[in-house]
Amino acid sequence: MHKKIVLALVASASLAGAAHAQQALKPEQAIKYRQAAYSYISWNMGRIKANVSGANYNKSEVILAANVISAIANSGMGALYIPGSDKDVGGVKTSVKPEFFAKPQDAARLAQRFTQEATELAKVAASGDAAAVKAQFDKVGGTCKACHDDFKVKN
Amino acid sequence: MHKKIVLALVASASLAGAAHAQQALKPEQAIKYRQAAYSYISWNMGRIKANVSGANYNKSEVILAANVISAIANSGMGALYIPGSDKDVGGVKTSVKPEFFAKPQDAARLAQRFTQEATELAKVAASGDAAAVKAQFDKVGGTCKACHDDFKVKN
Repeated sequence: MHKKIVLALVASASLAGAAHAQQALKPEQAIKYRQAAYSYISWNMGRIKANVSGANYNKSEVILAANVISAIANSGMGALYIPGSDKDVGGVKTSVKPEFFAKPQDAARLAQRFTQEATELAKVAASGDAAAVKAQFDKVGGTCKACHDDFKVKN
Repeated sequence: MHKKIVLALVASASLAGAAHAQQALKPEQAIKYRQAAYSYISWNMGRIKANVSGANYNKSEVILAANVISAIANSGMGALYIPGSDKDVGGVKTSVKPEFFAKPQDAARLAQRFTQEATELAKVAASGDAAAVKAQFDKVGGTCKACHDDFKVKN
């Protein structure tokens, strides 16, 4: 586990460096892009929730929603937490607490948990087992909450 | 081809109905979510562009960027074009022209082209062939432009 965290940090730092060098991403753009990712995740979590909570379970919809959550989780979002994106900038507000940047190992650990559980959600969704999807959906939601509790400003 | 378009429309309408019934998605939320999707696609298109244009080609980064573009393209975004989301609403602006809603078959055809080319991009990215990725990237970009030309308000 320790090795994985270190690897996650290295990968994250490496991607951040690459994005910074190649695209000259501005901090306000980075904030917008990561917020877009969370927003789209939110819609798709809602779709899955509706399917596992309601009377009808639409296997196809759950699969594509889980796939996109997994793909976003695995997309290397660490590259969007570049220097200067730790506070409101260029008219764009961020909800990330300073602690996220001050404790990169804790942040990486939570990010890794989210990525792992989201990846698993896509696998479980493919099975079409609604009860198993609900259980795994709750695990993913737990990783969202854990990170929000520690690192997201309450609105 | 014609059959596929009809199927795409039916699937889109079906998902829209499902989302509307199950989640009571507000038009302003639908606009925000689809804009989030396009925003995240934009970042990831930029990452791939940087890789196919620059001196260094990072196969891993291209794969995860292509995967997330493909997953978003395949996520059933048609469900986000619900009634009432064809104009600015609830303080949220949309850049979609009225023609998009008035010509659903044309819109579905362009959406289908984007989805097909984005799906192919993820496959080509896995090969690690930078020249092939560049060619397919340009095809995806072409489908973006085609839809923007016809259905996106110029800012």
